[in-house]
Amino acid sequence: MRVGVLGAKGKVGATMVAAVQAAEDLTLSAEVDAGDPLSLLTDSDTEAVIDFTHPAVVMGNLEFLINNGIHAVVGTTGFTADRVAQVESWLAGNAGTSVLIAPNFAIGAVLSMHFAKQAAPFFDSVEVIELHHPHKADAPSGTAARTAKLIAEARKGLPPNPDATSTGLPGARGADVDGIPVHSVRLAGLVAHQEILFGTEGETLTIRHDSLDRTSFVPGVLLAIRHIHERSGLTIGIEPLLNLQ
Amino acid sequence: MRVGVLGAKGKVGATMVAAVQAAEDLTLSAEVDAGDPLSLLTDSDTEAVIDFTHPAVVMGNLEFLINNGIHAVVGTTGFTADRVAQVESWLAGNAGTSVLIAPNFAIGAVLSMHFAKQAAPFFDSVEVIELHHPHKADAPSGTAARTAKLIAEARKGLPPNPDATSTGLPGARGADVDGIPVHSVRLAGLVAHQEILFGTEGETLTIRHDSLDRTSFVPGVLLAIRHIHERSGLTIGIEPLLNLQ
Amino acid sequence: MRVGVLGAKGKVGATMVAAVQAAEDLTLSAEVDAGDPLSLLTDSDTEAVIDFTHPAVVMGNLEFLINNGIHAVVGTTGFTADRVAQVESWLAGNAGTSVLIAPNFAIGAVLSMHFAKQAAPFFDSVEVIELHHPHKADAPSGTAARTAKLIAEARKGLPPNPDATSTGLPGARGADVDGIPVHSVRLAGLVAHQEILFGTEGETLTIRHDSLDRTSFVPGVLLAIRHIHERSGLTIGIEPLLNLQ
Amino acid sequence: MRVGVLGAKGKVGATMVAAVQAAEDLTLSAEVDAGDPLSLLTDSDTEAVIDFTHPAVVMGNLEFLINNGIHAVVGTTGFTADRVAQVESWLAGNAGTSVLIAPNFAIGAVLSMHFAKQAAPFFDSVEVIELHHPHKADAPSGTAARTAKLIAEARKGLPPNPDATSTGLPGARGADVDGIPVHSVRLAGLVAHQEILFGTEGETLTIRHDSLDRTSFVPGVLLAIRHIHERSGLTIGIEPLLNLQ
Repeated sequence: MRVGVLGAKGKVGATMVAAVQAAEDLTLSAEVDAGDPLSLLTDSDTEAVIDFTHPAVVMGNLEFLINNGIHAVVGTTGFTADRVAQVESWLAGNAGTSVLIAPNFAIGAVLSMHFAKQAAPFFDSVEVIELHHPHKADAPSGTAARTAKLIAEARKGLPPNPDATSTGLPGARGADVDGIPVHSVRLAGLVAHQEILFGTEGETLTIRHDSLDRTSFVPGVLLAIRHIHERSGLTIGIEPLLNLQ
Repeated sequence: MRVGVLGAKGKVGATMVAAVQAAEDLTLSAEVDAGDPLSLLTDSDTEAVIDFTHPAVVMGNLEFLINNGIHAVVGTTGFTADRVAQVESWLAGNAGTSVLIAPNFAIGAVLSMHFAKQAAPFFDSVEVIELHHPHKADAPSGTAARTAKLIAEARKGLPPNPDATSTGLPGARGADVDGIPVHSVRLAGLVAHQEILFGTEGETLTIRHDSLDRTSFVPGVLLAIRHIHERSGLTIGIEPLLNLQ
Repeated sequence: MRVGVLGAKGKVGATMVAAVQAAEDLTLSAEVDAGDPLSLLTDSDTEAVIDFTHPAVVMGNLEFLINNGIHAVVGTTGFTADRVAQVESWLAGNAGTSVLIAPNFAIGAVLSMHFAKQAAPFFDSVEVIELHHPHKADAPSGTAARTAKLIAEARKGLPPNPDATSTGLPGARGADVDGIPVHSVRLAGLVAHQEILFGTEGETLTIRHDSLDRTSFVPGVLLAIRHIHERSGLTIGIEPLLNLQ
Repeated sequence: MRVGVLGAKGKVGATMVAAVQAAEDLTLSAEVDAGDPLSLLTDSDTEAVIDFTHPAVVMGNLEFLINNGIHAVVGTTGFTADRVAQVESWLAGNAGTSVLIAPNFAIGAVLSMHFAKQAAPFFDSVEVIELHHPHKADAPSGTAARTAKLIAEARKGLPPNPDATSTGLPGARGADVDGIPVHSVRLAGLVAHQEILFGTEGETLTIRHDSLDRTSFVPGVLLAIRHIHERSGLTIGIEPLLNLQ
């Protein structure tokens, strides 16, 4: 498959250029960055494009790609409901072209969350520990908060975590996200890590995800590129590619 | 629901007697052990029975239960294909009665294996580490070997784990189970633990199951008892109760 | 060595009776409980005694033991400075008899704390996560709070943990114990566990202690009994037996 | 302190140049690489030098440094007993100048090994699990083999690990290093990690070291530079700087 990269000189884009070049089943057909004409993609017979650009330009990119029958795998952020509807309407007029937009391409992170939802109703207790480098501004992390919300939703109607805590120090039991305790560790030397702990009588189940460097999105983007032509229309998230549904 | 326990004086049976008594939504209707007449179950209007007895008596128990319209949740071992067929034929003549037979009621163990199968195709590498008390006779554990086989099957057609090991000591890289390395740790103080490690570029996913005492089958048996009347005929394993399929 | 157990019918005492009986190098010489005369110990030529009794009786026990030249290993609580001074004064008059009083006999717990103190000055960041069963009333646990205080003391004069957290939910960053974040997880299925995480540029060090059942004091008590005759006077804690000082 | 870097254009040297520049209490006085005259160091009033060069040139460097009263912290490899003796003889003639040569500057790794030696005699069981990226050629890793040897030495005279394994697959129980089982995991996404597991009745202690990127030597080198003037003569390893002895 002939693959182009939009945002090819950005940090993420450059990593994707290298990854496509290294993949034996893919050919890098075009590298396009700010200022380059999008016609580089059509001139090079590009079949699918990876877009890690900017919210300000991604809609223009998608309109061009869809109108020219080029599939797109998009990691650029900022997709409001309005933008999603616009992309769907473009796709409606171009059967055979497909777009996948994902907020997170790290396969391990996506599977973690999916497994957490599945396990959530079957344990008495669940807590989340997320561990990051100390330069992070928010606590808990967005991923941990989202994970806790998904778990809480999957436990709707069930009793809350048992917890006999009656004395203690403020903060010891973590942040409360819809009833799920979330603990944030900030430690020099760490990158991005998350543990989801489930417990019931006599046993515990722990799902741990470690992002050890910033290239953890690469396998998920390549998976999406390899399967994009099997999808039709718009796909949100990589979950549908993981045979989870 | 009125619940009877067969094998009520055995170690596992006694634990189940206590668990049924402690459950607010269940009533313990009968405790039956070797030598007691099975009519204790019908006399007490028992609706469902938990059977942790012995391969030598379990078939007689099941014939009686099915003929009397009593559901059964069975942890007794020794179910050959012939025995399973026999149970199915009894059930065919008694619509409305159902039986669940499971080799493992620990929810965390069953979910671990299920998640491992789901994750297996999406990572470059996978290894299994199982850790047990030092009195265990087999290495690797039966569960670890079965987990590795399920993973290997889910990866059929994919490249093997990358591994540049060229020098070393025998055994360092573990046992080879269908291409999946399995490492067995035997340590005083441990009970029964298993980690499944998946890795790809920049990220790892770890699924860890800890059995911390021998009552870890209780929640799974109670789950089965609570849902047995919704099943029809024969169910093998608790997976179908976990909304995994 | 001939070993007696005081409080022999209590839960801990009974465990120690069994442990002494199982030890090939020790002989159980006497089992003494409330109401039994202490002369059972002298009559049986007991050389050393394990005392897990009650604050109300332990001082009487110790006076008798010291005056009769019997060594004592004591797990009973409630030793104020006054009581310690009293024991020392009794011992001063009985050279050759020794007493060891320890608040915690779990070797792994004691080593954890010792290692934490040693590592504390050499990392930029340190946090503590303690995980217990959900019936625990206090959060953080006494051990975690003590561990954090010891770490804080060992870091006196050093910069605080780096932490760029600027937005978030209350509690996410744990309880603050002298500047060390402590996170308390309460999960069904757990017993008593603690992780101390240290981090600096490019590396982390984790010290984890797991108490998997309530017999984890046994090896420490046996260690103390085997070495009590080498000590002179009063010893507080098992640290001096671990060649740590 | 005025600090020079020898091998300043090498990968490690360049990292050290940046680290010295970033340290508020240190001044980078000279960057010297192959072909540059060593007089750059004396001309710049350099007080201490970091040497990550090559076995072929390091002895010449050290002779120059010692003769000019410049302290040296050396990560270059290849120090045979003969070379060590030579360095000591140069130092004997230059009181007030000191040299520290270390095979491993990662503080976490050094502490891990030290703690393992301390804990080794007090547990019934000990095993080592090391986990690395799949490009590693040797299994077990040199560090894991050295750790196991140190542990075995600290347990000399004690009974071996209990192990009832009687059936199984070859390799399941790991490599045998002086009686200590060592398990080697090779997983895409990992960097360099090691766990030392200790177990006794009812409790386990785990010491885990994670190297998450290749700069984990930096804090140890800076520690050595800051304390080199307090040492006299030759120091081997960073242990003496960690208040461990």
